[in-house]
Amino acid sequence: MFSGLSAFPLTPLNEKGIDEAVFVRLIERLNAAGVDSVCALGSTGSYAYLTRHERLRVAQLAVQHAGDVPVIAGIGALRTRDVLELAQDAQKAGAGGVLLAPVSYQKLSDDEVFGLFDAVTRSLSVPLCVYDNPATTHFEFSDELHGRIAQLPNVASIKIPGVPADPEAARARVDLLRALIPRHVTIGVSGDAFAATGLNAGCEAWYSVIAGLFPQIALAITRNAQAGNAREATGLSGRLAPLWALFLQYGSLRVIATAAELRGLVATPCLPLPVKSLQGEVRQRLAAILDELELA
Amino acid sequence: MFSGLSAFPLTPLNEKGIDEAVFVRLIERLNAAGVDSVCALGSTGSYAYLTRHERLRVAQLAVQHAGDVPVIAGIGALRTRDVLELAQDAQKAGAGGVLLAPVSYQKLSDDEVFGLFDAVTRSLSVPLCVYDNPATTHFEFSDELHGRIAQLPNVASIKIPGVPADPEAARARVDLLRALIPRHVTIGVSGDAFAATGLNAGCEAWYSVIAGLFPQIALAITRNAQAGNAREATGLSGRLAPLWALFLQYGSLRVIATAAELRGLVATPCLPLPVKSLQGEVRQRLAAILDELELA
Repeated sequence: MFSGLSAFPLTPLNEKGIDEAVFVRLIERLNAAGVDSVCALGSTGSYAYLTRHERLRVAQLAVQHAGDVPVIAGIGALRTRDVLELAQDAQKAGAGGVLLAPVSYQKLSDDEVFGLFDAVTRSLSVPLCVYDNPATTHFEFSDELHGRIAQLPNVASIKIPGVPADPEAARARVDLLRALIPRHVTIGVSGDAFAATGLNAGCEAWYSVIAGLFPQIALAITRNAQAGNAREATGLSGRLAPLWALFLQYGSLRVIATAAELRGLVATPCLPLPVKSLQGEVRQRLAAILDELELA
Repeated sequence: MFSGLSAFPLTPLNEKGIDEAVFVRLIERLNAAGVDSVCALGSTGSYAYLTRHERLRVAQLAVQHAGDVPVIAGIGALRTRDVLELAQDAQKAGAGGVLLAPVSYQKLSDDEVFGLFDAVTRSLSVPLCVYDNPATTHFEFSDELHGRIAQLPNVASIKIPGVPADPEAARARVDLLRALIPRHVTIGVSGDAFAATGLNAGCEAWYSVIAGLFPQIALAITRNAQAGNAREATGLSGRLAPLWALFLQYGSLRVIATAAELRGLVATPCLPLPVKSLQGEVRQRLAAILDELELA
């Protein structure tokens, strides 16, 4: 479940609630494409903006419609109490694994984050992926802390925020982390722009935003990297550079949500206010990029 | 309500719920001391970690027990939908004003934050204080954005995260912001270490962590500054320098919560996990500082 291509779908919604029918279609699309796992309620799934009940419902729908594709559910929240409840809900819904980020309001210490993962992993009967994303959680993992957390029961993967652009440096980064964690814990790259380089450098998984909407291109990159065709993987990713540039400037969520709106795959708007999709000139630019890349 | 000393009490709690009786005692203590307002559910009140129901209850208790001291209630949340509900709850509870921070998970744009304040201020029938605290919200207000938001209906104050340590620079900072906002909007300083300098520099309010637990010393600083005794205000604040140093290193919430535990004013623990109060050597150091400063 924590290797290969993990697709992170949007949770299409408006101020009244979740667009369940459209979410189901996104999940069916991922199943049909043959991704290796679906991660519902990742950052791309706007987990942090949903109620407990909405999150349970999204996890249930993902499991019901993903067929034989395993479903991972995001269980992050500010408070340990809430994370424990969300972990129970995700397991009840049938998720095969969970994803946990140390979401913060008060800046957290290493000791506090370890305490969170310790409490949650004790409570679980499914494997957990550690979600390292300083851009949204504002917590910076040290490698030493990754090493300690990776020893906890049920920890099965670490989702790292990216790798250096240089292939040698990327391999050195992955090797360094690998030396600190048990053999059964996989390393997955996120930050789609880094994915080809990360997979080529030995990451076993790609936790992917673009795969949640356009799984084919992400599968092509992944399967090439897995087959040792490093140059092909890098080349396919390079074609998407205009998209990665927008991800960097506006955040991958806004870009992928706007792409989904433009392609009619979700209703407009589909993000939780105050977050908005792209408007005006940049929206038109994205439309042109999608046409040119034949992403539909 | 948005001038003078605004005291930010802790919301004492454990993993089972809020310690209502102890919260009421903290509020009564503030009323007896004669602070100018109470801000329940500020960052010090752990608002971001509480459920909607818990927040309604805390606002109600604060209003019921603050006597004639006006109560401001924090209404921040990640999602506009939730902020609007919390605003309704705060008003129903009898809060005289609200405090709103642009809490973020996805990094917000200026346009998105303006949209949030626009939607919320339209819905209000009480005044609002704009809560600018990049350390917890991870959003940096520009002065231009402060100027735009301050024009919205019901905006009555801006809580700024601090002022430069140099008195001249502090005055220049306050004057610069003042020139961009309507006359009826007050500027309040937060970051307790900056308070004396901020009040001396023309801030009309101090949004104070320490006043939530030890109102007397904060009142002495405030009343001196208000009377034009700048040197006395600075001197009183300077005596608290060892406390301000701990605030900087460990976060004011952990320090004030630990102080409350040490003084028996709340039960131990009193913070929402994963956040923990100070332990070990630094806890002992804080106890010694409280003794030396005769804070009880």
